[in-house]
Amino acid sequence: MKKFEDLGFSKVDLDREKRTGYPEVIYGEGKTADQIKKIMETLIETHGKAMVTRLSKEKAEVLLAVYPDADYHDVSRILLYGLPRDKYGGDVMVVAAGTSDLPVAEEAAITADWMGCKVNRLYDVGVAGIDRLLAYREDITKASVLIVVAGMEGALPSVIGGMVQRPVIAVPTSVGYGAHLQGLTPLLAMLTSCASGMSVVNIDNGFGAAYQAALILKLANEGVANETALS
Amino acid sequence: MKKFEDLGFSKVDLDREKRTGYPEVIYGEGKTADQIKKIMETLIETHGKAMVTRLSKEKAEVLLAVYPDADYHDVSRILLYGLPRDKYGGDVMVVAAGTSDLPVAEEAAITADWMGCKVNRLYDVGVAGIDRLLAYREDITKASVLIVVAGMEGALPSVIGGMVQRPVIAVPTSVGYGAHLQGLTPLLAMLTSCASGMSVVNIDNGFGAAYQAALILKLANEGVANETALS
Amino acid sequence: MKKFEDLGFSKVDLDREKRTGYPEVIYGEGKTADQIKKIMETLIETHGKAMVTRLSKEKAEVLLAVYPDADYHDVSRILLYGLPRDKYGGDVMVVAAGTSDLPVAEEAAITADWMGCKVNRLYDVGVAGIDRLLAYREDITKASVLIVVAGMEGALPSVIGGMVQRPVIAVPTSVGYGAHLQGLTPLLAMLTSCASGMSVVNIDNGFGAAYQAALILKLANEGVANETALS
Amino acid sequence: MKKFEDLGFSKVDLDREKRTGYPEVIYGEGKTADQIKKIMETLIETHGKAMVTRLSKEKAEVLLAVYPDADYHDVSRILLYGLPRDKYGGDVMVVAAGTSDLPVAEEAAITADWMGCKVNRLYDVGVAGIDRLLAYREDITKASVLIVVAGMEGALPSVIGGMVQRPVIAVPTSVGYGAHLQGLTPLLAMLTSCASGMSVVNIDNGFGAAYQAALILKLANEGVANETALS
Amino acid sequence: MKKFEDLGFSKVDLDREKRTGYPEVIYGEGKTADQIKKIMETLIETHGKAMVTRLSKEKAEVLLAVYPDADYHDVSRILLYGLPRDKYGGDVMVVAAGTSDLPVAEEAAITADWMGCKVNRLYDVGVAGIDRLLAYREDITKASVLIVVAGMEGALPSVIGGMVQRPVIAVPTSVGYGAHLQGLTPLLAMLTSCASGMSVVNIDNGFGAAYQAALILKLANEGVANETALS
Amino acid sequence: MKKFEDLGFSKVDLDREKRTGYPEVIYGEGKTADQIKKIMETLIETHGKAMVTRLSKEKAEVLLAVYPDADYHDVSRILLYGLPRDKYGGDVMVVAAGTSDLPVAEEAAITADWMGCKVNRLYDVGVAGIDRLLAYREDITKASVLIVVAGMEGALPSVIGGMVQRPVIAVPTSVGYGAHLQGLTPLLAMLTSCASGMSVVNIDNGFGAAYQAALILKLANEGVANETALS
Amino acid sequence: MKKFEDLGFSKVDLDREKRTGYPEVIYGEGKTADQIKKIMETLIETHGKAMVTRLSKEKAEVLLAVYPDADYHDVSRILLYGLPRDKYGGDVMVVAAGTSDLPVAEEAAITADWMGCKVNRLYDVGVAGIDRLLAYREDITKASVLIVVAGMEGALPSVIGGMVQRPVIAVPTSVGYGAHLQGLTPLLAMLTSCASGMSVVNIDNGFGAAYQAALILKLANEGVANETALS
Amino acid sequence: MKKFEDLGFSKVDLDREKRTGYPEVIYGEGKTADQIKKIMETLIETHGKAMVTRLSKEKAEVLLAVYPDADYHDVSRILLYGLPRDKYGGDVMVVAAGTSDLPVAEEAAITADWMGCKVNRLYDVGVAGIDRLLAYREDITKASVLIVVAGMEGALPSVIGGMVQRPVIAVPTSVGYGAHLQGLTPLLAMLTSCASGMSVVNIDNGFGAAYQAALILKLANEGVANETALS
Repeated sequence: MKKFEDLGFSKVDLDREKRTGYPEVIYGEGKTADQIKKIMETLIETHGKAMVTRLSKEKAEVLLAVYPDADYHDVSRILLYGLPRDKYGGDVMVVAAGTSDLPVAEEAAITADWMGCKVNRLYDVGVAGIDRLLAYREDITKASVLIVVAGMEGALPSVIGGMVQRPVIAVPTSVGYGAHLQGLTPLLAMLTSCASGMSVVNIDNGFGAAYQAALILKLANEGVANETALS
Repeated sequence: MKKFEDLGFSKVDLDREKRTGYPEVIYGEGKTADQIKKIMETLIETHGKAMVTRLSKEKAEVLLAVYPDADYHDVSRILLYGLPRDKYGGDVMVVAAGTSDLPVAEEAAITADWMGCKVNRLYDVGVAGIDRLLAYREDITKASVLIVVAGMEGALPSVIGGMVQRPVIAVPTSVGYGAHLQGLTPLLAMLTSCASGMSVVNIDNGFGAAYQAALILKLANEGVANETALS
Repeated sequence: MKKFEDLGFSKVDLDREKRTGYPEVIYGEGKTADQIKKIMETLIETHGKAMVTRLSKEKAEVLLAVYPDADYHDVSRILLYGLPRDKYGGDVMVVAAGTSDLPVAEEAAITADWMGCKVNRLYDVGVAGIDRLLAYREDITKASVLIVVAGMEGALPSVIGGMVQRPVIAVPTSVGYGAHLQGLTPLLAMLTSCASGMSVVNIDNGFGAAYQAALILKLANEGVANETALS
Repeated sequence: MKKFEDLGFSKVDLDREKRTGYPEVIYGEGKTADQIKKIMETLIETHGKAMVTRLSKEKAEVLLAVYPDADYHDVSRILLYGLPRDKYGGDVMVVAAGTSDLPVAEEAAITADWMGCKVNRLYDVGVAGIDRLLAYREDITKASVLIVVAGMEGALPSVIGGMVQRPVIAVPTSVGYGAHLQGLTPLLAMLTSCASGMSVVNIDNGFGAAYQAALILKLANEGVANETALS
Repeated sequence: MKKFEDLGFSKVDLDREKRTGYPEVIYGEGKTADQIKKIMETLIETHGKAMVTRLSKEKAEVLLAVYPDADYHDVSRILLYGLPRDKYGGDVMVVAAGTSDLPVAEEAAITADWMGCKVNRLYDVGVAGIDRLLAYREDITKASVLIVVAGMEGALPSVIGGMVQRPVIAVPTSVGYGAHLQGLTPLLAMLTSCASGMSVVNIDNGFGAAYQAALILKLANEGVANETALS
Repeated sequence: MKKFEDLGFSKVDLDREKRTGYPEVIYGEGKTADQIKKIMETLIETHGKAMVTRLSKEKAEVLLAVYPDADYHDVSRILLYGLPRDKYGGDVMVVAAGTSDLPVAEEAAITADWMGCKVNRLYDVGVAGIDRLLAYREDITKASVLIVVAGMEGALPSVIGGMVQRPVIAVPTSVGYGAHLQGLTPLLAMLTSCASGMSVVNIDNGFGAAYQAALILKLANEGVANETALS
Repeated sequence: MKKFEDLGFSKVDLDREKRTGYPEVIYGEGKTADQIKKIMETLIETHGKAMVTRLSKEKAEVLLAVYPDADYHDVSRILLYGLPRDKYGGDVMVVAAGTSDLPVAEEAAITADWMGCKVNRLYDVGVAGIDRLLAYREDITKASVLIVVAGMEGALPSVIGGMVQRPVIAVPTSVGYGAHLQGLTPLLAMLTSCASGMSVVNIDNGFGAAYQAALILKLANEGVANETALS
Repeated sequence: MKKFEDLGFSKVDLDREKRTGYPEVIYGEGKTADQIKKIMETLIETHGKAMVTRLSKEKAEVLLAVYPDADYHDVSRILLYGLPRDKYGGDVMVVAAGTSDLPVAEEAAITADWMGCKVNRLYDVGVAGIDRLLAYREDITKASVLIVVAGMEGALPSVIGGMVQRPVIAVPTSVGYGAHLQGLTPLLAMLTSCASGMSVVNIDNGFGAAYQAALILKLANEGVANETALS
């Protein structure tokens, strides 16, 4: 099988699923509906499924006309065609600090779901009302992997990071103003967190966080090599 | 009485106590021990007391030789001469996120004490171990004013801000590295806090936070005008 | 009573008034009129009042149709329903450097008023014409708490901070251009002020400044604990 | 058992192992040898082991005099006392772009090892000589988790991220000059990587990357809940 | 011949071709169609050709009505009138990391072509799928000069720089979001590349890269002075 | 006369006095005492005088051994040899906000004096004690040109700018910490001043401010062309 | 006479002309046409003239209906009513680097003219074609004061600063893209110029540069005090 | 032949000369003298020569003891062993704006020389005395490639870029203070230059500029492919 398909404007990476576990995902911004359609064709032909992120409603309508079986998610702006290959044990908990962080949280949730993860959502539990968070403390500690989405000062992942034994992937959002610097402030804050076990992805990158969460669950489901197994 | 004393290199503001409630405080950095000594002389002559902040041990020793009754605080690097005029009701709680934030927290505590406030200290209750903080929740809610000192991502003031009815003054510290940007990150994070009722001072400015806390207690102790009193 | 109401997209913090003295305030940006309406419903049911900040005229009209008794303030973009519980003694003076800073100054003034503070306004007294400010020097020194709003270089709070015995809360605004960096310059300038007793809130955050001012007046009105009272 | 030990200058978090899987780790910078010794005492009493990061040689010598069984690692500046509780199946590969990145890479490697991970090192395979990296492609794809350490422009994690099915944790280093901005440039570059499945930790934070890697292996070794197992 | 033509609003540099090898190129942004038309007139009169960059479709239509023989390139937004004077031996390879980088890559390609260079295009070979790039390794090593265009983290030029004996001119693009800082991140990353032999131009400046590439080919075609010739 | 002297490491600009009114001034930083000595030789030979700025005490001692008639000013770190050619009417007032700004203020004062200006100094009149400044209001309005030096938030030039009819040159200093960003904050603040008639020079650039002040006095002393004289 | 008129939303500074030589100028941005109209009324009543900067065409039309004798300048977006009181000897040369810098250059030219200065314009003489500049070298050296406007890298003021004996006021513009950072790059570059005698104003602040230039000519026309006159 | 030598701490890239035309160059910073010695051994064994950049005098002395035939250049801090393979026709002109830029200029000059280029040096011709530069205009136009080194505002490359037909590689230096931001300002200024045909390398990266210059001369000396030769 050839490793990529050269469409001129794009070299579709047909080998990516074999290498990285999942087919290429189409980043919808900065591509025309027509370009996306052609890349989708190639991906669907090879993998039987395709996912487009950051897709405007306008382009989505063009694509839904071509692929009526696809699903477009308004809040997360994701278009999905086809179903996940695997359905992993364990779960990903997507936690969001505020109502305004929902588009990013949903991008994470929809992505993780499509990549085969069971997803639990816990929204609007920002640290200014810590009791809301503490009310869910037991649920939080049971999650296999946690994606914590927060704008403003981005304090939520630090608090959660200190509560759990599981990896926390922090996602800063562009929700805020002034000294928030379009999300740079929570990004930097999360990177200097006093909690261990946390890592961070780009501002508003719910997709990236979910992708890594899915790779972690994939590893946990496939198990690690016998010869070095836990004694 | 003249409003200031002109020492050539400095115009000592003798009128400041009348205007702002407290005499001029000497910022020790960038001044020679000799310059500080001369300003102290003028202040002590007028007010009977003097305070020097950010004073190195070396300069402190020179000044202690001149003023053996003065006290030099190693951790906060403050030199004090004389006692506060007032002793306010109510108290200031100084909360610090980590052990490394102590110099700044102590600068706040020593300053507030010298300005007439009762000070309670609560140190090393950073958000990565939230139960330490929650163990003191009742004490926290009883404080009249809270100064919350934190380096790293600076999340502590947001959590405390959501727990209390009293003003919270947040102090970012230069404790951290990399994306912490010498304290700029917690500074910006605190400014974009999701908690209301918080304000922020400069990085490592424990003095400034305590100064405002003392003004608040001063107001609370002097009481507000009768004609508009609480019904 | 339950501590929060879970609306799915939001967990309304019903316990906040008990904890922090005031009910949750709705940040209007990034929420749909419908989401705001549902949160208002919950808040009004519990507290009999609600406040929405940063609300566009369009959304305000939708909400005013539902709550005809609510008031929408054009300049400050605040919607208010219901009246303050308390009416505090003392007053908050809102000082603005220039005419263009009015929307932020009004956000502060309307907020403080609704939280139970008597508000005095002193507008357009920027430092380039210092005599305008000096003409009001006596009024300034009589205020219980001062909120000082300034764009451009943000020098006004420093000048006022050196004149008064009361806490000054500085609010930088996004009024300016070029090196002003959308308000970052006055924000940083205010943080490095040579005046003591000042603290700072986020760019354009009139609401946050007023919130803290109200907490200060609340403390001053409730008085401080007897056992440590001023001798 | 009590949740923390209050040493005055520090509240040692004795409950952390139960909550997060590992005991508190001592951040050596900004603490005196004496403070570290006291925290170590408390930790060893409770957990039988202790780890100190970012420890200078001078302080290490003081501590080694007290704990002759401890090991101090020169390059990574880590002091270890006691052994890991678990020995996980699977492995962590630590990849470093250049020779100058070794201190950070070793901090990651020593940390992961102490936390119970088998560690493989692959050093000096920066992208300017891509064939060095390609020579190890098979090894790279076999790792369970990858920590990729790079200074300069920080391109290595992107290249590796496109080769593997496993989570990649990227660590920018402060190795570089000029436009490198003390590591801010590779940090930002890694955050905007075109590869999926990557997350990022703070500049020079080898410890944090290893900590998350160990949590991932821990999850993979403990397995995920049965009821949702992979079909 | 006069060195420049003074149009009032512009002093058209008629001497530039003699000095720098090519006539003045019109930067289309911030000029009206009418201003551009007048400058084109002057340039065509003197040089028989003209090039306009960053030209909107609207202004292009106005100019095409005046110069029906001109060509407007939609993707690169360049308008060309007349043909290159020279046709150089050797070639310029324009490499682009992703589909969204095409407008900048095309600006480079069209410019180089018009300046007399043979251009080869290699698009969508970003480092996240390194095998696509490696598939073209031989072609890459044969190019005389390489222009490498990349957004996101900007890693591609470093990888190519380590593969070739020829000068690499790196062009960061504004394609990305969040920590990408409108292209500042790949710009800084390219400047701190671990590969030698690379230089960098401004964000999205495909024109500038091509201009320098053409000067390099021009030198290679004209040859270097005999007296110091390669022995 | 030749326009410059080529010393190999330096091309001393002998023509500068004719062009710009003053001989080249030697910037002492980053040059060896020996290099400075050679440039001084050339300048003294041509102009009979020389000025060196930012000169360390160590290098000054070497040069004073060679030129015993030169004067070295400790605070401003300037070395002077020879006297000004002109002695202008009018005066330059150098105003400094705080005691720590003295080195920069003195650099300005010494420079202006050497360039032929009468200099008046007004130090330590920062805005936190506005009455000190107001006490000198009449003197301030009489100055021909004002150089206003301030660190911290840099508010002083704005206040003075609103008081006078004469040009104000603002000099930000590196005196401050944290959000002060080594002087970047007052620099940006001064650039966005609400006062008109102000311009700004680089951080700590007392020399540059004085240089421009001297050019202004020079113009005022030489008078403006008759044919357009003030009616 | 009262020092200011209190319009509620504005305190018009009637005393400014007496203090600073010119009446208050209205900054048009962020004010409604109605607010501007009212301030104009007050200013015209007192001074017989008024100037509005940064005024949109829409607002200008409203004002021109009220004041048909006013002049609106399209390019500079300035509205003028009334004539300058003085007509100074000497002249201001406004130099612009490129065609796109014209709006800022014209803001300077119109302002200087209205303030009583004779203005000479020299446009499109950027350093990439140095011969255009050199062709006007003699004119440049004859100007009394120079305002040099440049976007891009902002190199022009440095070149001119090295050619003249007169003060140079540099104005960076927002013309550029990418690394130009909306004008921050030429602003910083101008501040670190290797030429002496230059000062800088805010990005696009042609008004501010002209204002200072006029104050300089005013001083030169009024002459300096006799007792210290040039011998 | 094997492609690299694995020394454990380093994988020496033995294949680099074949790929990129030159052997690996050792970056001396952050490596011990012993590590450098071992890499030198490997390189000398394979290529018969080695170059070390950014080497301190201390480490150089250690290496000179081992390799007495090596040359250490004090100003540029480069150590050379062995001679260039080729001696190219054409020449590289290294132009420096000021005396303080010499270390960077010399790094470029020594590097280019060692890579086989004839080097001409033109130092201290900064734009504040443009006549010095113009005096060498003819020499400048004759150079095959130009490396232009400048600190402060970095204006020199723009002026030269507008004078020549040859590629200009601009090198910003860290010479400056305040708004110079350790070289970031001239770096950004050079990137936004109004001159075409320029590209830029990292701050103080004289080596990188020379490396690319040598690749350009190499191409010009080897000539371009026949089939597309200049007609």
